[in-house]
Amino acid sequence: MTLDLKRFERFKDEYLAKLTSSTIREAMIYSLDGGKRFRARLIFALLKTRSIDEKRGYHCALALEMIHAYSLIHDDLPCMDDDDMRRGKASCHIAFGEASAVLAGDALLTEAFRVITLDEDLTAAQKVSIINDYSSLAGAEGMVYGQELDLKSEGKELTKEEIITIERYKTGCLFKAATRAASRILEDDDLTFYDRLADELGIVFQMQDDLFDLTRSTEELGKPACSDLKDEKATALAIFDISELKDELDRRFAYIIGEIESHFIENFDILGLIQELKDR
Amino acid sequence: MTLDLKRFERFKDEYLAKLTSSTIREAMIYSLDGGKRFRARLIFALLKTRSIDEKRGYHCALALEMIHAYSLIHDDLPCMDDDDMRRGKASCHIAFGEASAVLAGDALLTEAFRVITLDEDLTAAQKVSIINDYSSLAGAEGMVYGQELDLKSEGKELTKEEIITIERYKTGCLFKAATRAASRILEDDDLTFYDRLADELGIVFQMQDDLFDLTRSTEELGKPACSDLKDEKATALAIFDISELKDELDRRFAYIIGEIESHFIENFDILGLIQELKDR
Repeated sequence: MTLDLKRFERFKDEYLAKLTSSTIREAMIYSLDGGKRFRARLIFALLKTRSIDEKRGYHCALALEMIHAYSLIHDDLPCMDDDDMRRGKASCHIAFGEASAVLAGDALLTEAFRVITLDEDLTAAQKVSIINDYSSLAGAEGMVYGQELDLKSEGKELTKEEIITIERYKTGCLFKAATRAASRILEDDDLTFYDRLADELGIVFQMQDDLFDLTRSTEELGKPACSDLKDEKATALAIFDISELKDELDRRFAYIIGEIESHFIENFDILGLIQELKDR
Repeated sequence: MTLDLKRFERFKDEYLAKLTSSTIREAMIYSLDGGKRFRARLIFALLKTRSIDEKRGYHCALALEMIHAYSLIHDDLPCMDDDDMRRGKASCHIAFGEASAVLAGDALLTEAFRVITLDEDLTAAQKVSIINDYSSLAGAEGMVYGQELDLKSEGKELTKEEIITIERYKTGCLFKAATRAASRILEDDDLTFYDRLADELGIVFQMQDDLFDLTRSTEELGKPACSDLKDEKATALAIFDISELKDELDRRFAYIIGEIESHFIENFDILGLIQELKDR
C-alpha cells in the first residue's frame, strides 16, 4: 500500500488542534484515534486511479471519518449496543461519561459538514453535491435507517434479503459516501459504477465483521467478541454457516476485483486496498 | 404578526412526508411538532425588512428548527438533563425509547444540512456559507460547547460573565445561525450587526427562560418547572433576584428595539417579533 496515511493523520490532528479546547474536543480526538481508515483510504485509492494526489481528498476523508466515529460512539452507548470497548480501548462513554459521549458524537457529526465547506480545492457546487451525498447517506434514509433496522432485528429471524438490506444501509451507505466523494472530486459522472462498487464493498465488509465477531478474540477485534450473538443481532451467520460465508465472501471479492480491473487502468492502489480488506 | 406560519408548517410536513417511512421518521416528526418557531420566524422577519417573501427562508428555517429539535431531544436524555416533558408532551425518549431518541436526534442534525443543499433559490456559494455558519455555530465551538459549559456548571457558583457566556453559546449561537441565514439570503455583508443582534436576543431569551423556570407552572412551560433549580444549573437567577432580572431584561430589550429601529426602515415584522418575545 503506497498511500501515505501519516500525512492524513497529521492533517486530522492539526485540524482538531485548532478547535476550542474542551472536554468534548478531547472526546472527539480520542474517538477519532485508531481505526483502519478504510473509508478515507477508499477515497484516496480512487483518486490515485487518475493520478490525483490523495491530499485532494483530505477534507472529504476527514469528514467521513468523523461521521463514522460519531456513529460508533452513539452505537456503543448503553441505550444502543452497550459496548464497553472500541478500537482496542474503552468506548467513549466509558472514558468520558455518557453525556460527553452523546455531545462528542453530535459535535463530530456537525464538524464533518463544516470540514467539507473548508476545502479550498473544491468548487462551491462540488461541496454542495458532497454535502448532499453525505447527509443523504448518513441520515434517516441511510446509515441511521440501517441502525433502526439493526435494532429492530434483535431476536428476530430474517431472510437473506433482509439481512443484506441491513448491511447495505449500516455499512454500505458510508462506503457509498466515500466513492461518491471520489467521483465528485474526479468529476466522473458514472455514479452508478461507484455506487455499485460501494454497495458490494459494504456487504463484504459487514459480512466479514459478522464472521469475525464469532471467530476472533476480543483482543484481535479491539471490541468485545460475540457481541452480535449476545445481542441476538441478525447477521450473515443466521443464513450461512462459517464455511458457506467464507465461500460467499470469496465469490463477492472475485466480482469486486473483476469490476475494478475492467473499470480502472491505474488500479494498483485500489486493488491493493481490496486485497488488504480481503486478507484482514 | 403578519408572518404566515401555517405555510411554513405545511412545507415542513411535506418535506418530512417524503422521507422513507420509519420509527425514526415518526420520532423526528413528533419532536419537530410544536414549539414557537422563534428561530424560523427570526429569519422570516429579517427577510421582510427588505420585502423578501418569507418562502425564500423556508429551507434555512427548517434546517435550523431541525438542529434546534435535535438539541432538545439529546438534552432531555436521561444521561443529560433527564427531562420527561417537552413542548407540553412526553419527551422523545419517553415516547419512543432512548435508542430511537438518540437516532432521531442524529437524523435531524444530519437532515438539516441536506435541507440546505436542496434550496433552489440559493447559489451554491450561499449554501456553502450557510452550511459553514450553521455547523460552526451548532458544533464543538458553538451550541455543543455551551452544553458542555452548562453541564459543568451544575452545583457551581459562577460570575455574571460566566453565566452570560453559557447563555451566549447555549442559545445565542442558534439565533446567530438565524440572523446569518437571513443576511446570506439578503446578501447583506454587515454580519457584525446581525451577529450582535443575535447575541443580544440569545441572552434575553435565555434570561427569560431562567426566569420562567422559577415563576411559571409546568403546564404553562410545557416542560417541568424548576428543573434548573433541581439540577443546580447556573442561571441568571444566581446573580439577579427576580425584580433585578426583570429590570435587566427591560434594559436589554430597549437596547435591541433601538438597534432595530435605527438599522431597518421596514421594521414592522421584526419589531412585532421582538415585542412578542418581550411579552411572552
